[in-house]
Amino acid sequence: MPIKVVALAGGIGGARFLKGLRLIDDLEISVIINNGDDINMHGLRICPDLDSVIYNLAGESDLVRGWGRKDETWVVQQQLAHYLGEEQWFNLGDKDYATHIYRTNLLNNGIELSEIVKLQCAKWGIGLNLMPATNDFVQTQVQLTDGQQIHFQEWWVKHRAALPATGFELIGAETAKPAPGVLDAIAQADLIILPPSNPIVSIGMILRIPGIRAAIMAASAPVVGVSPIIGGNPVLGMADKCLTALGLETSATSVAAQYGDLLDAWLIADTDDEQVSAITNLGIKCESAPLLMTDDQAAKEIAMRAIGMTR
Amino acid sequence: MPIKVVALAGGIGGARFLKGLRLIDDLEISVIINNGDDINMHGLRICPDLDSVIYNLAGESDLVRGWGRKDETWVVQQQLAHYLGEEQWFNLGDKDYATHIYRTNLLNNGIELSEIVKLQCAKWGIGLNLMPATNDFVQTQVQLTDGQQIHFQEWWVKHRAALPATGFELIGAETAKPAPGVLDAIAQADLIILPPSNPIVSIGMILRIPGIRAAIMAASAPVVGVSPIIGGNPVLGMADKCLTALGLETSATSVAAQYGDLLDAWLIADTDDEQVSAITNLGIKCESAPLLMTDDQAAKEIAMRAIGMTR
Repeated sequence: MPIKVVALAGGIGGARFLKGLRLIDDLEISVIINNGDDINMHGLRICPDLDSVIYNLAGESDLVRGWGRKDETWVVQQQLAHYLGEEQWFNLGDKDYATHIYRTNLLNNGIELSEIVKLQCAKWGIGLNLMPATNDFVQTQVQLTDGQQIHFQEWWVKHRAALPATGFELIGAETAKPAPGVLDAIAQADLIILPPSNPIVSIGMILRIPGIRAAIMAASAPVVGVSPIIGGNPVLGMADKCLTALGLETSATSVAAQYGDLLDAWLIADTDDEQVSAITNLGIKCESAPLLMTDDQAAKEIAMRAIGMTR
Repeated sequence: MPIKVVALAGGIGGARFLKGLRLIDDLEISVIINNGDDINMHGLRICPDLDSVIYNLAGESDLVRGWGRKDETWVVQQQLAHYLGEEQWFNLGDKDYATHIYRTNLLNNGIELSEIVKLQCAKWGIGLNLMPATNDFVQTQVQLTDGQQIHFQEWWVKHRAALPATGFELIGAETAKPAPGVLDAIAQADLIILPPSNPIVSIGMILRIPGIRAAIMAASAPVVGVSPIIGGNPVLGMADKCLTALGLETSATSVAAQYGDLLDAWLIADTDDEQVSAITNLGIKCESAPLLMTDDQAAKEIAMRAIGMTR
């Protein structure tokens, strides 16, 4: 019998972790992916985290740039800039545009996002069961210190998370429902994993979809997380900016405390070993190990170590 | 005072003619462009004739291929084919896709097609007043001998006009209205020109938008046309296939008869000189001249000759 694993994931950090996780034998992996980054650009629905995970698992992602497709070209974006006559802060490659055209057309024809993700996975031959957290359109908004609210993508991509922020809202969350299969996967899981994704705007936003946090709390499966912070810095991405915006410390302990009673076990970096006792004092089993996902094999070993903490 | 000229135009034939027409001094040129070829592909609104005219006047068209943008790439199309897993008969380049994304987004935001055309013209620095025949979505359908109806683009592009046809309908024409400015331009014109465009599916479909034919008949301006047929062949495109589908001869005389009492004057090819008397007998002033639009200068001379017939 394979072990049923459910992982929650944001973009690049989650995607790298999943590339290791899927190398482990006898796992049946379901992944619940953040929609908070979703945005409509030029009338097309962009789902950055879904695409990041799919492109990475397909071996089609650009590993240097950290987002989008490898061997990408930029003709459509350049031409749109010609028409729009303004600086475009949200650039998308031509291969990427095809994904957004394909998805938007299906959405406009009444196909649910979760079905479209299945079609994408089939086309790329991805064996994992990928699911959006929700089929509803939700968007993370950033509350700025000057009172303004802007879309997370604008804050993240245009302003490189440099504008002082005080909070993050998930617009549309109140009425959003978990995508089909999400709650069942959680209920039937043997193990739930929180990969080293951004705890605030990636995994945090998945947990804001009504029913998902409660389902994880109610599930019989243990929950193990892998710290996205090594020392005072994020492994990948800009989690530190989000933690700082909320007045939180950028540390493995701080993130563990954020997840709170959701966590049964927390794997932190070997260099953060001195934090083990503080985290254990939170009532969370804690171990340390090398956490740099230098390649798929390194990610696999991190995943095996995390799984091992619960068995 | 400039001479106010209104031209009706389809795609490539009309576009080439307009490149010559605009070289003539002291003309104020308005162009009414066929929407019958319009089609929704992958959720994007494609307007082939509008784009052909704009791209040609912008010096951005591919003169060898005869449609679309020059120096084009095909990444989006190739990726869409990957997702759709089927042969795509309607190929669009990456630069072209940007146009369709731009237009569709504006349409979905309630901007009228005629306004979008103005924005496109401004971006490309096109001095002429280009107008779609209608802002409503109309589509030319081909009636096949086997009883089926297919979209004109499918017949034209996929089947290269090789399926036996018996007629052409403009779906949506009954309720379509001329775009803003169209009827006024006709009423105020000093001269109305029918360029060497396809008489059935280009100019013919413009004339099916309720009110346009009547406005031309009622206008004080003389109407001069340039034959799209030289000998038994179309100058450009496949007008012969459309004429044959309707049981009509492919000749300058046949097209003049089709336009009928709409025409005051009809310029035919010098090599068709023997048809002048037959056309004159239809009550239409007729002259012959070299009609090959080998370059813009040749097109200008044809346009000057046509204008000269009415003055």
